[in-house]
Amino acid sequence: MKKRGLIAFFLVTFFALLTQIYFADEGMWPISEIHKLNLNAKGLEISPDEIFSPSDLSLIYAVVQVGATGSFVSPDGLIITNHHVAYRPVQAASTKEHDYVKHGFLAKDRSEEIPARGMTARITESFRDVSGEVLSVLKEGMDRVERTKAIEKRKKEIVARTEKTNPGKRAEVSEMFSGKSYVLFLYTHLKDIRLVYVPPRSIGEFGGDVDNWMWPRHTGDFSFLRAYVAPDGSPADHSLKNVPFRPKRFFQVNANGVNEGDFVFMLGYPGRTYRHQTSHFWAYDEEVRMPYVVDWYGWQIALMEKMGEGDREIALKHLSRIKGLSNTMKNYQGKLKGMKRLGLVKTKKEQEKALQEYILADKDRTERYGDLIKKMGDIVEDMRERAEYELILNYLGRSALLTSLGCTAYEASIERAKPDLERESAYMDRNFSRTKQRLFLSLRNYYEPTDKAILKEMLQRATHLPEELQIPAVTAIIKDKGPKETIETFIEDAYSRTKLNDEAVLKNVFTKSTEELMNMKDPFIQLAADLYPTNLLKKEADKARKGLYDQLYAQLLDVKQEFLKTDFIPDANRTLRLTFGRIRGYRPMDAVYYKPVTTLDGVLEKSTGEEPFDTPEKIFALYKAKDFGRFAHPDSKSLPVCILYDMDTTGGNSGSPVLDACGQLVGVNFDRAWEATINDYAWSASYSRSIGVDIRYVLWVTQKYGGVDYLLKEMGIPE
Amino acid sequence: MKKRGLIAFFLVTFFALLTQIYFADEGMWPISEIHKLNLNAKGLEISPDEIFSPSDLSLIYAVVQVGATGSFVSPDGLIITNHHVAYRPVQAASTKEHDYVKHGFLAKDRSEEIPARGMTARITESFRDVSGEVLSVLKEGMDRVERTKAIEKRKKEIVARTEKTNPGKRAEVSEMFSGKSYVLFLYTHLKDIRLVYVPPRSIGEFGGDVDNWMWPRHTGDFSFLRAYVAPDGSPADHSLKNVPFRPKRFFQVNANGVNEGDFVFMLGYPGRTYRHQTSHFWAYDEEVRMPYVVDWYGWQIALMEKMGEGDREIALKHLSRIKGLSNTMKNYQGKLKGMKRLGLVKTKKEQEKALQEYILADKDRTERYGDLIKKMGDIVEDMRERAEYELILNYLGRSALLTSLGCTAYEASIERAKPDLERESAYMDRNFSRTKQRLFLSLRNYYEPTDKAILKEMLQRATHLPEELQIPAVTAIIKDKGPKETIETFIEDAYSRTKLNDEAVLKNVFTKSTEELMNMKDPFIQLAADLYPTNLLKKEADKARKGLYDQLYAQLLDVKQEFLKTDFIPDANRTLRLTFGRIRGYRPMDAVYYKPVTTLDGVLEKSTGEEPFDTPEKIFALYKAKDFGRFAHPDSKSLPVCILYDMDTTGGNSGSPVLDACGQLVGVNFDRAWEATINDYAWSASYSRSIGVDIRYVLWVTQKYGGVDYLLKEMGIPE
Repeated sequence: MKKRGLIAFFLVTFFALLTQIYFADEGMWPISEIHKLNLNAKGLEISPDEIFSPSDLSLIYAVVQVGATGSFVSPDGLIITNHHVAYRPVQAASTKEHDYVKHGFLAKDRSEEIPARGMTARITESFRDVSGEVLSVLKEGMDRVERTKAIEKRKKEIVARTEKTNPGKRAEVSEMFSGKSYVLFLYTHLKDIRLVYVPPRSIGEFGGDVDNWMWPRHTGDFSFLRAYVAPDGSPADHSLKNVPFRPKRFFQVNANGVNEGDFVFMLGYPGRTYRHQTSHFWAYDEEVRMPYVVDWYGWQIALMEKMGEGDREIALKHLSRIKGLSNTMKNYQGKLKGMKRLGLVKTKKEQEKALQEYILADKDRTERYGDLIKKMGDIVEDMRERAEYELILNYLGRSALLTSLGCTAYEASIERAKPDLERESAYMDRNFSRTKQRLFLSLRNYYEPTDKAILKEMLQRATHLPEELQIPAVTAIIKDKGPKETIETFIEDAYSRTKLNDEAVLKNVFTKSTEELMNMKDPFIQLAADLYPTNLLKKEADKARKGLYDQLYAQLLDVKQEFLKTDFIPDANRTLRLTFGRIRGYRPMDAVYYKPVTTLDGVLEKSTGEEPFDTPEKIFALYKAKDFGRFAHPDSKSLPVCILYDMDTTGGNSGSPVLDACGQLVGVNFDRAWEATINDYAWSASYSRSIGVDIRYVLWVTQKYGGVDYLLKEMGIPE
Repeated sequence: MKKRGLIAFFLVTFFALLTQIYFADEGMWPISEIHKLNLNAKGLEISPDEIFSPSDLSLIYAVVQVGATGSFVSPDGLIITNHHVAYRPVQAASTKEHDYVKHGFLAKDRSEEIPARGMTARITESFRDVSGEVLSVLKEGMDRVERTKAIEKRKKEIVARTEKTNPGKRAEVSEMFSGKSYVLFLYTHLKDIRLVYVPPRSIGEFGGDVDNWMWPRHTGDFSFLRAYVAPDGSPADHSLKNVPFRPKRFFQVNANGVNEGDFVFMLGYPGRTYRHQTSHFWAYDEEVRMPYVVDWYGWQIALMEKMGEGDREIALKHLSRIKGLSNTMKNYQGKLKGMKRLGLVKTKKEQEKALQEYILADKDRTERYGDLIKKMGDIVEDMRERAEYELILNYLGRSALLTSLGCTAYEASIERAKPDLERESAYMDRNFSRTKQRLFLSLRNYYEPTDKAILKEMLQRATHLPEELQIPAVTAIIKDKGPKETIETFIEDAYSRTKLNDEAVLKNVFTKSTEELMNMKDPFIQLAADLYPTNLLKKEADKARKGLYDQLYAQLLDVKQEFLKTDFIPDANRTLRLTFGRIRGYRPMDAVYYKPVTTLDGVLEKSTGEEPFDTPEKIFALYKAKDFGRFAHPDSKSLPVCILYDMDTTGGNSGSPVLDACGQLVGVNFDRAWEATINDYAWSASYSRSIGVDIRYVLWVTQKYGGVDYLLKEMGIPE
């Protein structure tokens, strides 16, 4: 395609897109904003006060953050979330004899519920703006690093003070617009979460990586958990004396579900979006960061798949990591395709051009903002130059488990020696046990040949960095011999001598001082020590960059707000948000229409008998008998399985309740359509569609397949 | 999936399918049958007599066989067919300086038209049933080979006699139901065909192998040719003295096209279907033949793609073969998927079971037909046992060009020594020059390293055949050394010594006697001589098998007809057929609907700037200007590109006219949807959809892109 043709085409598409972006129902709205939305005019049939008002009865108290999102669906702390959100604890609880991933898990009564290891639950209790208090620490003449550090310190102080006056609660200061606005959230934090009912992966993960990020979808991606507290109602670690948590509010389940065109809304904890970033930042992601990650994750997946060939046990060890890597990789591939197809960077550049014209049209504005966009571009230019170096440094310390163990242990010894408030977040008292727990869980799936191959590849990539960006720790390994043989020798020696992969040793490691650690003479502690100064320099550089960027970013928002005469919604940041829309299909390409409700027919059509399409025989029998109970779709003779809607979601919204006009639960959100992976950058009325499992399928599987009638009773489903 | 579940599922699907197969508008109807169809009740608005009656004005005279199918669209012999049907002659006419494949071909007036090398055109003139005359040669006591040979000979006699009394015409006796009914067709045979207008491959082959067999489709798969005859109107070889052929009838073009739901019908020359074959035969295709071909073609494609890497000229040499192999491979893959999904073999088995019950319910029937189905199964059982041997023997003589040249030359020397009527068809006087021409055209794309690698692989596969099926010619190469080294030595030696790849030598070869050939001492003649006795044995075995099979097959049809109380339509056999249906979308899977008309929007959506999605800049400009002339779709603001319909087609229908209720041309058929590749075995109302290029796109491209206004005028398109 010739350039001029391309441009012509994009101009057409992009004006269409512009219209959509600015006039459609985009938005992950902070709870503080929902009263501005006029939701009743949009289709909501209850008062917005029911969703949130400072009363104790608000629906927001039925929403729970469990890594991603979940919902209370009974007065006894019953939580519904996604199968994939509960995947790690289910895997951790599985043994050769009891493979809960494969066969699912069912507690016949509460005494049979087992701990969901590593899982906690947070409930948003309250929030208030603390921007003034945070920004008051900034003083004239502070340099960039000082600015960042001062803000970080003030945030920690506010958190510490709040938690002190609210014993048992967790506090967090979230950056809404970085450098500009900050909100203090107070959370109830529950630590005893248990598995109640988890369908087998042939239902809960039906379609696997093949269908991931795809519509039409047929995945029963749900699980039931339960939160427990001490008999006095306070959050407590797991104990048999604990009693079910009684949430302030839980969602009524509407067993009739919703249908095409119905109004729906969602509450949840979306993770991260970049909608307010500049075109330079988007271009960096599109041209540099995401292609690198896609390549590196793809390399690791190929390696792990090869390692697992012909040995089911080794393959199982890699399963969870492959799942994680491939999830991100496919997401990025979708984003890259979408960004290109919609010409997002071009669109953003046009917007910035218009903004720049607005700035230059006024002398005062020119003085204040004239070189703002250029300066922000310069920062990204610097990021581009150092991108490969920074990516390699990052993955060198993270991708192989043993370097990750070594680096964490070494860094812990240094950070833990500081006063709590001055430590990096992962090493603060409130987070440290979780940091360690994650490492111990990873160790369960450790497989030496894979770990060696990953480290080897990363070291080799590091040797190809330009002269001036060589990493001293890597240079030390290569010394004066050729890179290939010395890397291999180093790896063979290091893996044969290390003790860090011994769980008993690892436990002790986190109590040692830096000196004691070094005395262990462990090669991965040594490597960590060699990498530490380089990482420290990088962290300082990051802070300097953030200090400057945040300052500019705040100015950018000011002038954009002035220009467009509108308020903005902050980018997603793992705080509670509301989004709304309708059950709606879409046109993924010319002459194709995707309907917004899939059925059990599709499950059977896709079933091949082989993973990930290995539907259990009982489902076939129920299908043949047309035994859909009360859950059949009114328009069809089949059973709804998944639903599609044009709400605005991103990662972190997994497990979020899909709620009907009356605020009753009709589905559990779990994914986006391939074309909607671009949500992180821009929302599109044509393409932004998210996917939930239909409550009718959840209830049908639970009752007819799982035989767990008591859960339907507990949720108050009429018979 | 457990077996019982699968069966349950298939039972459901397959009863649904049964209903569809027997009650929907399946059928590639012989022209002799169309008066039984009540086409006016189905939607035809002209009299069926207009399509065919013994008058000279029938529409069938506007249909022409050019390899596949084409249509006369002007009184001056202008033919429209597919781009891919004209591909070989366009490629053959291309040079480095004039790449007509890439840039397209345009004759600004008739003097600029150039020969379409290797292309001829046949028009069905008349037909009559000759079953009695053919079958009268069968005598009691003939063995199976004798039966087959006697029928072949009688068919040749009828052809020779008919051609003698109809000078300049071609005759053909076509087996309608093998062993049962035969029809004599008389054809006008035109030999001077020229290229008129061929769009560039970026339009005519848009989507390439990626989109092949797929809907939604956006390919402008059409070309214009013209047929010429001697000044006296008789068929003649190419000469500048020739004049345009004046067909008895040509199609009016309807520039308004058709829309969703409209009645359409088609005339054409479908190649081969297997609907009346037994379940054993289908299972053999599904389990043995097609998987082998998919594997072998896939191997060759991978090889050729590797050979062409980094060298455009070498890549170009492989293009046409890759295209052909990949077309068949993807078709078979679609069939394999469809046969499995619809459980076709199971369906057929159930039908045979019902038939067998009917047979056994009557003593007389039991006597005549009791073991009929079993006997037919036994023949296929024998085919299965010898399958790999026969496939390898076949590809050994065909896949590498030099073995193909050697074998053809050697066989020619033997066959050409016999009286004309006793020769294998390819070596009869009427066909021999075409046989040679095909080889010479192949030689243009010869690339030694590819040819060597293919022969080597085939020889190696041959060495793995079971002891008792070893091929003596291969055993002779291996002798007593290990297979690997001797095969390599043989190949190096043979390719260094052969002269067959020299066009001048090759021309002489076909005039030599067997003895003269052997005296050449060419290694590929020697290999052909070594393979010849084995091939001869295989041919005799084939004839014996056919002799028996045809006999049983005729009986099977008799009893099936008796059982189902219905007439059958013969399987497709390259004779003129009619099919009808409607412009209709379909549901390829749960929650997805394919609409039956694509638009130019989709062309632009798919365009990436890289082959096969490299839309010309001018198309972008026309799109931007919304310059759709009079061809825009009435319901939309865009231009229709391709149409989808539920007519019953197969290979050979390429280029067939899609005709509206008034018998006017509204499209040119060129493909089937992926799900419809199973048409060769069974027609399905849900999945059997074929694809045509919309006449509005044809005319728009011709006028607005090609600037060939005179062609629109010639076709009588109002301005």
